[in-house]
Amino acid sequence: MRGKRINDPTKNRFTRLALEGVGEIYELAQNPKHAELLTRSRKDGAKINAYCSIHGSKKDLVNRVRAARLICQRTGVCTASRCCGWDALNALWHTTFEVDRRFGTDYHNRLKRYVAMVQGRDLTCAGALTDPKGNRALKPRHQPDKDVYLRIVDENRKGIVVRGAKSMIGGAIGSHEIIVLPGTGFAEGESEHAAAFAVPLNAKGVVQVVDMQPGGERKLEAGFDKGNVSYGSSESLVIFNDVFVPKERVFMNGEFEYAAEAVTKFVQLHRMVLGGCLAGCGDVLTGAAALFAEYNGLSRQLSDRLTEMTYLSEALYSQAIGAAHEGQPTPSGAWFPDPLLANVTKMSVTRLPYEIQKIAEDIAGGMISCMPAEADLKNPLIGSFVEKYYQGTGEVTAEIRLRVARLIESMIAGPGRLGALCMHGGGSPAAAQMTIKQLADLEHKKEMAKTLAGI
Amino acid sequence: MRGKRINDPTKNRFTRLALEGVGEIYELAQNPKHAELLTRSRKDGAKINAYCSIHGSKKDLVNRVRAARLICQRTGVCTASRCCGWDALNALWHTTFEVDRRFGTDYHNRLKRYVAMVQGRDLTCAGALTDPKGNRALKPRHQPDKDVYLRIVDENRKGIVVRGAKSMIGGAIGSHEIIVLPGTGFAEGESEHAAAFAVPLNAKGVVQVVDMQPGGERKLEAGFDKGNVSYGSSESLVIFNDVFVPKERVFMNGEFEYAAEAVTKFVQLHRMVLGGCLAGCGDVLTGAAALFAEYNGLSRQLSDRLTEMTYLSEALYSQAIGAAHEGQPTPSGAWFPDPLLANVTKMSVTRLPYEIQKIAEDIAGGMISCMPAEADLKNPLIGSFVEKYYQGTGEVTAEIRLRVARLIESMIAGPGRLGALCMHGGGSPAAAQMTIKQLADLEHKKEMAKTLAGI
Amino acid sequence: MRGKRINDPTKNRFTRLALEGVGEIYELAQNPKHAELLTRSRKDGAKINAYCSIHGSKKDLVNRVRAARLICQRTGVCTASRCCGWDALNALWHTTFEVDRRFGTDYHNRLKRYVAMVQGRDLTCAGALTDPKGNRALKPRHQPDKDVYLRIVDENRKGIVVRGAKSMIGGAIGSHEIIVLPGTGFAEGESEHAAAFAVPLNAKGVVQVVDMQPGGERKLEAGFDKGNVSYGSSESLVIFNDVFVPKERVFMNGEFEYAAEAVTKFVQLHRMVLGGCLAGCGDVLTGAAALFAEYNGLSRQLSDRLTEMTYLSEALYSQAIGAAHEGQPTPSGAWFPDPLLANVTKMSVTRLPYEIQKIAEDIAGGMISCMPAEADLKNPLIGSFVEKYYQGTGEVTAEIRLRVARLIESMIAGPGRLGALCMHGGGSPAAAQMTIKQLADLEHKKEMAKTLAGI
Amino acid sequence: MRGKRINDPTKNRFTRLALEGVGEIYELAQNPKHAELLTRSRKDGAKINAYCSIHGSKKDLVNRVRAARLICQRTGVCTASRCCGWDALNALWHTTFEVDRRFGTDYHNRLKRYVAMVQGRDLTCAGALTDPKGNRALKPRHQPDKDVYLRIVDENRKGIVVRGAKSMIGGAIGSHEIIVLPGTGFAEGESEHAAAFAVPLNAKGVVQVVDMQPGGERKLEAGFDKGNVSYGSSESLVIFNDVFVPKERVFMNGEFEYAAEAVTKFVQLHRMVLGGCLAGCGDVLTGAAALFAEYNGLSRQLSDRLTEMTYLSEALYSQAIGAAHEGQPTPSGAWFPDPLLANVTKMSVTRLPYEIQKIAEDIAGGMISCMPAEADLKNPLIGSFVEKYYQGTGEVTAEIRLRVARLIESMIAGPGRLGALCMHGGGSPAAAQMTIKQLADLEHKKEMAKTLAGI
Repeated sequence: MRGKRINDPTKNRFTRLALEGVGEIYELAQNPKHAELLTRSRKDGAKINAYCSIHGSKKDLVNRVRAARLICQRTGVCTASRCCGWDALNALWHTTFEVDRRFGTDYHNRLKRYVAMVQGRDLTCAGALTDPKGNRALKPRHQPDKDVYLRIVDENRKGIVVRGAKSMIGGAIGSHEIIVLPGTGFAEGESEHAAAFAVPLNAKGVVQVVDMQPGGERKLEAGFDKGNVSYGSSESLVIFNDVFVPKERVFMNGEFEYAAEAVTKFVQLHRMVLGGCLAGCGDVLTGAAALFAEYNGLSRQLSDRLTEMTYLSEALYSQAIGAAHEGQPTPSGAWFPDPLLANVTKMSVTRLPYEIQKIAEDIAGGMISCMPAEADLKNPLIGSFVEKYYQGTGEVTAEIRLRVARLIESMIAGPGRLGALCMHGGGSPAAAQMTIKQLADLEHKKEMAKTLAGI
Repeated sequence: MRGKRINDPTKNRFTRLALEGVGEIYELAQNPKHAELLTRSRKDGAKINAYCSIHGSKKDLVNRVRAARLICQRTGVCTASRCCGWDALNALWHTTFEVDRRFGTDYHNRLKRYVAMVQGRDLTCAGALTDPKGNRALKPRHQPDKDVYLRIVDENRKGIVVRGAKSMIGGAIGSHEIIVLPGTGFAEGESEHAAAFAVPLNAKGVVQVVDMQPGGERKLEAGFDKGNVSYGSSESLVIFNDVFVPKERVFMNGEFEYAAEAVTKFVQLHRMVLGGCLAGCGDVLTGAAALFAEYNGLSRQLSDRLTEMTYLSEALYSQAIGAAHEGQPTPSGAWFPDPLLANVTKMSVTRLPYEIQKIAEDIAGGMISCMPAEADLKNPLIGSFVEKYYQGTGEVTAEIRLRVARLIESMIAGPGRLGALCMHGGGSPAAAQMTIKQLADLEHKKEMAKTLAGI
Repeated sequence: MRGKRINDPTKNRFTRLALEGVGEIYELAQNPKHAELLTRSRKDGAKINAYCSIHGSKKDLVNRVRAARLICQRTGVCTASRCCGWDALNALWHTTFEVDRRFGTDYHNRLKRYVAMVQGRDLTCAGALTDPKGNRALKPRHQPDKDVYLRIVDENRKGIVVRGAKSMIGGAIGSHEIIVLPGTGFAEGESEHAAAFAVPLNAKGVVQVVDMQPGGERKLEAGFDKGNVSYGSSESLVIFNDVFVPKERVFMNGEFEYAAEAVTKFVQLHRMVLGGCLAGCGDVLTGAAALFAEYNGLSRQLSDRLTEMTYLSEALYSQAIGAAHEGQPTPSGAWFPDPLLANVTKMSVTRLPYEIQKIAEDIAGGMISCMPAEADLKNPLIGSFVEKYYQGTGEVTAEIRLRVARLIESMIAGPGRLGALCMHGGGSPAAAQMTIKQLADLEHKKEMAKTLAGI
Repeated sequence: MRGKRINDPTKNRFTRLALEGVGEIYELAQNPKHAELLTRSRKDGAKINAYCSIHGSKKDLVNRVRAARLICQRTGVCTASRCCGWDALNALWHTTFEVDRRFGTDYHNRLKRYVAMVQGRDLTCAGALTDPKGNRALKPRHQPDKDVYLRIVDENRKGIVVRGAKSMIGGAIGSHEIIVLPGTGFAEGESEHAAAFAVPLNAKGVVQVVDMQPGGERKLEAGFDKGNVSYGSSESLVIFNDVFVPKERVFMNGEFEYAAEAVTKFVQLHRMVLGGCLAGCGDVLTGAAALFAEYNGLSRQLSDRLTEMTYLSEALYSQAIGAAHEGQPTPSGAWFPDPLLANVTKMSVTRLPYEIQKIAEDIAGGMISCMPAEADLKNPLIGSFVEKYYQGTGEVTAEIRLRVARLIESMIAGPGRLGALCMHGGGSPAAAQMTIKQLADLEHKKEMAKTLAGI
């Protein structure tokens, strides 16, 4: 991270916060109140953490969205690791089944064993898709440096050797394992890129570069200027410098025909889930804005704007629930949300949270563009001025007001701000738009119009 | 209508089109392909038209939305009558049950008998809520003319006499019955306004004034300038000039404490359903725009905009499905959608269709602001010019292009245009906003924020 | 119009209203209060109507915008004819000058004489650009029927013969002359299409087809259901069926290199001016919405929304003024607005008026989707009910409320509604976007970024 | 800053960058190319920096906007100090003139001497308005602690003593002087708050607390991770701990009737100018996004979005120019922009830059949510991986791509990000909306509507 090795991520304050976010998923799953959402019963009766389960019903999909909202309401951040790993396992459950059906391979059983191990040990798995991609105008097979799409560079009886990099790996610093999927569909002549596998993050050759995002430095401090004092998130670039993957952990090895399928099924889940995540983060930001309004004595005057924030969060949530409800099973037994509605949810996710942020910025007023630090408040010379001039209505001390303002600030402009979460998580808006275009069935709609126009 | 009596609404071309819209509901219900959506099985085994059923499950609510989308895809218009009546019956099913529980009255049984009659004869019932309201700044009990909120002016052993008016009664011209609900909540001292009942539309004292909306005149013509050549919609003002309602048809009689409940349950359904309706109308308009683009040789260039139209329609649909999925039963046995999400859907309904319209207007180009009439096309002197200059790509004749352009024009600027459908159907945006405000549970969100800010 | 010949456009109610709109320009120009805006002094001292002047200064451009706003505030409609003709004369003033400079032709002097004649007789000239265009994916020279772009089919010593059609000719029915420009840029091999000229609208071979737009039928009635009781607008398709144009009235004859220039200069003016027009129409609609709110007793509650309407209109106006202020002279002496800002104004014009419309629709409530006709109000049987139930606050009679509701209705959904005015007037949004793209000077902006990034 | 004293702001990297921003104004004013914009000639012939001049014409106002855009294009940041001071001087020029006219005081001459001194020594003056305000629901005279609005606590023959605080003082750290205006209008009984004056920032009792905003820590580093490597901005809270102000520097002393006037005139200028500022910053961000697209090989695919960014910036600019053009002189001789259009510009400024940011975030892709630090690039162990996987198309090295990505990141989420600049600079959106409401002249618009509705 920033050119320096982190020896113990539980000690580094930045990475510690990200770990706490994932930790909350373990913690809440122990809570009977949340057991229905956060645990599942395996066929063999074993109770497992939902975050490493395979969705076996429409209800599971709906609960997937609800769990995402709950965790974000509790943490205020993206705890991407377990999420992405969860979605990756489900995508592979389907893909390996299909590949085996067509090619007579044995990936599905391998995966089943791997999933059972993950469930048994309740591991956190990061999910990795995004390749560096080099020149976007060129296809993978025409790239000057083929490694810009992760690829298999060697293979023997025991396994494969992979080279490349995956970026935007949410929560990798807090994960035990990393599950790698193809980053895009591949064509003939690109089979070396069609690789899916899992390795522990401390496997030989795996290098992880953690990004802090602007404001991340503040997470290294002890006090409340970081805004969210309990949880954080992290994003990593993960480099695979000729990493050996044993056969038992390889889930696709050259079957380029199914690379797109793996990606598609992953994003189908992820683009739906984001509706829940952003609704949950939106709830926290709405709550913070409501507190701020209250401390300024303006609850009534700002109630319409707070209602608009609520509307926006719920609009995201209801779309995600709609996508889940329209979900269908695949022959593998795994359920996936409706592909069109999942992508529709993602499109909304790239738009509505910006409105939420903007209203929060409006309500928070000039204060979030200029406020004293905690160290100013505690400074013996000037602290009393800060106390005096930042006091809120009634009993609200300057510290309380500053804490809320810092929370809003961090959710708007700090690491893990809503904008960073919503635009490119689960793929770009352009990718969602492309999928909607493909699924729009314009011909059917043209027929409707023709009938009514009498043509 | 426009100062003249309509002797036979099946003969008048404007009202005929509105009747055809309702007719399509009867017709499709016969079609085995649509039986699942459009029919329901009563407990006694009788198969009834869904449009007069009581929702008994989450699935029924989801199908309510699907049916709305299907009918709008087929007709391109609002066939409000059966919809509003359907929602009114469900709202009363719950309300009468609750009133009886509290006051020991017998409304629920009355309603059951009425519903059984409607189901048995497969009647179309309009639903009526909106009162004229007079001066909005005054409460009902302070209005100079109390009739601006419909009220009970007399009562005897056999029934009640009501006076007032209800406006925006969609499809009343094509309905057998009209079911009247309170138009708003009422307080003590306003019990005379707390009335719910049903009467046939030809009951003595019922006067119906049908509005055409701009462009309605075109529906009186024979040809294709009306755009949608098969279906139409209508809105009526219905005046109750001291109408007698027999006891058996009275479902609320002064219980002002439950007036709000009746309205709330009606709009909960209706605000959800609109997501399906507008998605369906959006589909038709998207199809028409896609045809227009194709006829101009611009399908590829306009594909992003067509995708945006698809996104907008599906966003409405997925919200409605989300609201249905989160629905819950009431003690009466009737199910209702989640109140927060239903109102969220309505808010989206007051916004997204305007975007759909705007894109359609963009794609349709200048043509929809200036095009020859069918009579010009068929005029012996100038028809050949129209033929020549309005021909589309390939085999597309001027007539085909004009038909599609007229369909778009009618959906943007004719009677039943999307804008007229979406803004005030199911109540105003302000009413939906108010409900969201009440249901937002800001206190819970403030707690989330406090926890994360360390307060 | 609609297949029937109009013998006297001053007698037909629809066309009469359109004529009244233009008439208002003549009328106001007589009014000393508006002399500064609506008249100009020619170099020879003659006082002429501004609507046939050549812009000789920045102030003239600014007054062009102000005049547009004023006329729209007075009439509530697009009085396109004199506007388009005015812009066409200015565009040709520049283009003929440039063509002559390059080719040694004599168009500019011809035009000067023509302009002097128009000024002297204070004529109303329509402006015509839009060709039918056939298959948009093909270039003009590849069209199966070349007439879909107007073209010169013959030429002799005395003049030329032209064939083709121009559509969306605003106000042609109320014009003495029609000035025709190329509809787009042309390339080598397309010189037959590079024609600019003027003819009287009663020239032999000129056929005019007037469109009514939905709701136009209502303009044929006597009463107030038409909304705007004093003024209207009209759009025509004008067919040139081998029309002879004498040499003195030909201002471009094959110089395809300057076709784009003529179009560009026309739209530069027109796209700026629209900011004034839509601001003026927005003012009227804002006033109507404010009245409606007042009659409902809701002025205070709706004041934020009325303010938003004001904001939107003024945003359009200020952009147009900005574009005018940054205007520059051409070598011909004619001034034109800044091309980038004029197109920016047009982009805003295709967006903001829809917001204005939407708010008006919100404020006008359900009433504009269902209201009685004037004939209902005056009907002896039901008029009293309409009186009773549509009365507003205080002294506001049902007629007054209905009149305002009808005005709003007509501006949202009638002929000449804002949407029809703003989307394609002065060309499509896509055309404006293309121009902005060309003028954006991204290279300059990249340099700024490079400097700050230290590259 | 953050609890620690800054001994030399030219040495602290954060404050140094802010100083460089102001420095650029001095630098460019020396450049003959920019002399027209950045210098003015005083009546006595002296050439002065425009940033301390009084606007004497419409052209001065237009140049005010142009200067703002130029400086922001050059620096990419808000160099608020000289701007706010400039606007404050102009506001006082008018206000002191008016106060003197009414009360026979001598403020205007004092101010003239002060302005001449500032001009002669070419000083940078911060402008201070925003009070802490305490409980917004209470009027100043009802606040438990009256100091939450700055006030005069003592007065003698030589001057006054003031106590209070002003926040959001842009660029105070780089200013020689601070000019203080009332923060709002005041009423009778609040005259102690009606104070305007100027003091040097090192006056006794002045305490300045500088805020860094999230990401500010990065400005303390040497390399390019700060994004904008040359310039920065700063915001301060300035506390007046019983500061003595000599009489010659007092420009309002209790004349509460004119407090609102001083604020109004300040914001009239400032709200207009922001259109230029945000257009300039928008230009830089557009350029950065264009570079990023180019380095990814996606210039063509993203050209529509880049065009939209251009449109948005130019829309802001043209509105500001429109507001300047419609400016008028006051009796004092100072010119001010049109109040309605200036506030309209501000409203747009609170909206459009968010759209610009969002598009930049879309174009910058996932990279700005996860990218290696400069220290990673230069790390001997992992630098080569960063080099390899972050290379752009052609010759574009990883460093170049990272530099551009960091610039975008800093403008979206760093200190001085567009969102922080645009929402509350020059007052809140609510304040602008309130002003528009007051200036909307709805009565005039109602008259227009009445005439057309025939009422």
